[in-house]
Formats: sequence, C-alpha cells, structure tokens
Amino acid sequence: MSEARKLAAAIRLVVFDVDGVFTDGRLFLDSNGVETHKIFHVRDGYGVKRLLAAGIEVAIISGRDSAAVAARMAALGVRHVFQGRDDKLPVLEALLGKLGVAPEHTAFVGDDEPDIAPMKAVALAITVADGHPAVRAASHWVTQSGGGRGAVREVAEFLLASRSCD
Amino acid sequence: MSEARKLAAAIRLVVFDVDGVFTDGRLFLDSNGVETHKIFHVRDGYGVKRLLAAGIEVAIISGRDSAAVAARMAALGVRHVFQGRDDKLPVLEALLGKLGVAPEHTAFVGDDEPDIAPMKAVALAITVADGHPAVRAASHWVTQSGGGRGAVREVAEFLLASRSCD
Amino acid sequence: MSEARKLAAAIRLVVFDVDGVFTDGRLFLDSNGVETHKIFHVRDGYGVKRLLAAGIEVAIISGRDSAAVAARMAALGVRHVFQGRDDKLPVLEALLGKLGVAPEHTAFVGDDEPDIAPMKAVALAITVADGHPAVRAASHWVTQSGGGRGAVREVAEFLLASRSCD
Amino acid sequence: MSEARKLAAAIRLVVFDVDGVFTDGRLFLDSNGVETHKIFHVRDGYGVKRLLAAGIEVAIISGRDSAAVAARMAALGVRHVFQGRDDKLPVLEALLGKLGVAPEHTAFVGDDEPDIAPMKAVALAITVADGHPAVRAASHWVTQSGGGRGAVREVAEFLLASRSCD
Repeated sequence: MSEARKLAAAIRLVVFDVDGVFTDGRLFLDSNGVETHKIFHVRDGYGVKRLLAAGIEVAIISGRDSAAVAARMAALGVRHVFQGRDDKLPVLEALLGKLGVAPEHTAFVGDDEPDIAPMKAVALAITVADGHPAVRAASHWVTQSGGGRGAVREVAEFLLASRSCD
Repeated sequence: MSEARKLAAAIRLVVFDVDGVFTDGRLFLDSNGVETHKIFHVRDGYGVKRLLAAGIEVAIISGRDSAAVAARMAALGVRHVFQGRDDKLPVLEALLGKLGVAPEHTAFVGDDEPDIAPMKAVALAITVADGHPAVRAASHWVTQSGGGRGAVREVAEFLLASRSCD
Repeated sequence: MSEARKLAAAIRLVVFDVDGVFTDGRLFLDSNGVETHKIFHVRDGYGVKRLLAAGIEVAIISGRDSAAVAARMAALGVRHVFQGRDDKLPVLEALLGKLGVAPEHTAFVGDDEPDIAPMKAVALAITVADGHPAVRAASHWVTQSGGGRGAVREVAEFLLASRSCD
Repeated sequence: MSEARKLAAAIRLVVFDVDGVFTDGRLFLDSNGVETHKIFHVRDGYGVKRLLAAGIEVAIISGRDSAAVAARMAALGVRHVFQGRDDKLPVLEALLGKLGVAPEHTAFVGDDEPDIAPMKAVALAITVADGHPAVRAASHWVTQSGGGRGAVREVAEFLLASRSCD
C-alpha cells in the first residue's frame, strides 16, 4: 500500500477548493463582471454523494464567492461551504475545531498557491492533473483528471478504495 | 466480423444516457443552481436522424432532468425520453415491454456507474472514449470520440454499418 | 507546388459551412431548445476580413439557422449568407450563377456529410482537422486546426499564400 | 541566464492583448452578435495581482471592446485599459510616454498578427503556446500554457522570477 493510500485510509473529512478543482478554472463573466454560471462535471457530483453516503464529511473553502457554487453544494448535500475566503488556513482550522476532526483524519484538495497552507496543515494533500507546479510539489497524490473533468470523482474513489483496504 | 459487430447487426433499439454521452458531462449552472443550457454536438444530431430513418428506435434515459434535453430530443424526433431517473434498469425494462423489443435487439450507451445495470441487461453495451473505467470494463464497444464530441454519431454509424454487413 | 496549392491559386470565391467549421460543432441550447449563443474564434474573423480585402468573395451555407451567425457575418462584411439549408448543392449552384463565378474558381469548406455534395461540385474541397472521415476522404486539403479553433484563418492564409505564388 | 530572462529582469511594465491571451480566443456571441460573456481563467487573476503587488505596471490593449473585460480588469486593479483599438502601436507609444517607461523596460504579450508591431517596439516580446506562427516567430519567449489556460499567470511568474535573479 502506498504512502498516500495509507494516509487516505484514515480520512474522515475532505475539504475541496472550488475553482480549478470542481471546475477547470474558467470564469464565465458577464458584462458587469458577474460570474453568472459555474461549469461543474456530472461525474463529480456522484463522487461527492458517495463520500457523504460512506460517512466521510465534505467541505469546500473557496477564494471566490458564487451563488452557483452554493446552489450546487446544497443540491449535493454538502453542508460546510465557505466562500470569499482569501486566507483559507484559519477557515480550515475553525472547521476542524467545530467538527472535532483532527488534521490526521483530514484531506485538502487544491490547485493553486493559496491552497498550499491548508494542504500543509492536514494529513493528506491532493491536487489535480493540471494543478500549479508549486501545488503539485506539496501534494501526496495527484489525480489523473484535470479540474472540472472528473478530478473530484477520482478523489472520492481513491478515499473510498483506501478505506476498504484499511 | 468482431463480436461487437455481430451484436450490433441485431440491434433494433438503442438507448442513450445523456450527460457524458450526448454531452461532455459539464453542467452549466446559473446562480440558482439551474442548468440553463445543455451543450450538444451538431454531428450527433445527424446520427440520431439517420438511426431513426433506418428504422432503429432511439430512446434516452437520464438521471438528471433538463428542459433543453426534452427540446433537443423533440427536434430530433426521439419519442422515448425518460429523465430524472436515478434507477435506470426498471425504466429500460418497462420500455422494452412497451415497445415489444427483446434485450438481444437492444443496445445501451452509457458513461458512468448508474449505466452499468441497464448495460448488463441488454445485448450490446457501449461506452464513450472518456467513460468511467468501470463502465469501460462492462462494455462490448468503446467509441473513439468522447461524450459530446461525436460519440453518438459514431454509435449510429457503427450500428448502421453492422446492419448492412448482416 | 502541391496539387491543392495550384487549385487554391485560382480561387475567387470560398464558401464555408458554419457548425463544425466556424465553430467546434457544439450547440449551446437553452431550456426551449433555442441556440442562444454561437461560439466563434477571434482569429477566424481576421482571416475572413483579409480574404475580403484581397478581393476573394466569401459565403456561408449552413444547415442550421442562427441569428448569432447572421450577426457575426454582418460584422465581418460577409454578404452571402444562407442558413437553414439542408440541401446545400442547389444553394451553391444558384450562388455561382448569381455571382458569375465558375466552379473552378470556387472552394468549399465543410466538416460533415451534407457538405460532400457541394465539395464535389467545386474545384477545391477543404475540411477541418476534426472533420468527419468521409469528408476528409473527399477533401484536397485539411487544416491543422479543428473547427472553431482557427481553421477558417488557416484556410484564408492558405488561399492568400497560394495566390501570391500564382 | 537565458536572453529572454535577462530582458525580463528589466521589465517595469507589461502590456497584454486580451483575446487569445487572457482568453482562448473564443467569442461567445448572442443572437444580436453581442459578446455577452468573456471566459477568463482563475489562475491568471492571481498572476496579475502578484505583478501589481511587486510594482510591475500592467496594461491591456485589445482590438475588441468588451464590458466584461473592463469589469474584470477593474476587479484585478489594472488601471490602463485600452479597448477597440485596431492599431495598437500608437496606443502603446502614448502609454509609454504617459507613464514615462522606456521600451527597454516594457514587455508585450500577444497572440495574433496585430500584436506584432507593438511586440517589436518593446524589449521583450512574449506569446502563448497556441499563438499564431508569425507571432511566435517574433517572440523572445513562449508560454507553455495556451491563451486563457494560465498563460498570463506564467508570464507573471516568469517576470517575477527573472527580477529576483537580477
């Protein structure tokens, strides 16, 4: 069993960045600069549902703020949604405290430099195939799919498969 | 003649999943979480029309529910449209009963795990180039195009070419 | 000088299909099945303008009907715009008669089977990198770019470069 | 240290084209031919902010005119925004005069032929991975990412890393 898989077997909470992870990083802006739509992937939604059904808690911490993200996460049953947070580490720490989950049972999935601090604060750091090089260097595991192309689903299956090997 | 081609020669009904097959799996969600648009491919529409013109019946069974899908299928002349169905196998079985078509004359085209049960219930199971690995493992034939990039057209041409070799 | 380049040197009129040539073939449909937007490529527009500036006439013949196409072509100065035409050959023949241009001075750029008949009726048949295999087989020249990704620009540069070698 | 890196170390102002650099060149046009949305990349925004924070001035000069571009640049803190300018060289020259920045301290990032004249007027000419061949030939450095896929971020990191080596 690989190092990442051993770490994954202990995960009870997985925290995702949104842009570049649940999406391919594109921002669809109207003439007022408003992000009217977000583009998610259908197969990722099924992964989130399976995580929750297996008792693994799911949260998102995003630097941006989008009503579409709030709506999508509500539809998937994700209850811990933090948006518009430039500094993600304090948000993560408060969440761990509130849920009573230790860092060694937590994974963080990010794609860009603001994600590195929270990735280093938890046991398992994951990035997407097209993540920023500095984020890849800080990751224990990298998905084969790019952000918005099934990467979240891969993370879900990796965590669930690792758990069953535990 | 390959095994898949022999199976294809007998097909009188082909049932398609929508997201990830007719589309590339992206969900274009507005700030209310509503899927305002679906993105289809122009070459797929021509494939559906050719299937229907050749007397091969076409149906769709989708886990999601989209008015754009209903409108597109109506425009293409597809009469058997089932949406919002998490459990696809009973829908498929009811359709076969209603149409009087046997499983050995039926193909199912899917891309994700909810499609595996109906794929196993018919003679010919097909997936797209970027289908989920578990779905690929359950398929007799895989298109060269990804979902939403001409995969449906490829299925149409494969069925029609196989029939003419019959 | 290649055969295609010799043919290209004589071209005075180039007729383009739209979906799959000016676009990547994706249809962006709303909940009424209406194609609210078309996605063009900025570099293609510059190619059309250069063709017109060089005195090469430009026309489009499309199987679909889109207000966005009409608006884009008007903005680019394309005066010969035929939409909603399933049978493209008679439209092409009428256009050649009206403009007094002979088939040996005409090119047709298409990506799918309905384009094959008009492609065979003119001197120079061109398709895009991701054109349908049957269309590629009927083409004298294939762009390196896919439809909607700069293919029209490539056609423009090929025609203009061939002319200067004449 | 490479030639491009030496040039980059001296840059105090970087001027970007928009379509094909901040975007992948696609124009999302509605039925009136109006570009209702622009599609930016989330990781590019972070690059622009880092450039400005480091004291490197940022400007854009675009051939097209888009309210979404104005809104995005305002959100990122870019103060020098010139749109609807077919002839970019005079705009660049006026900007250099106004800011009192010499060409040897200026970089221009473009993707298409109208960008070549301003690229030749400054010390450092940069294009994107999918830039037009003629523009690549005129460039000192080419990003690994395509336009709209993180190319602007790469430019920012290249300039900042080169400066620190100075």
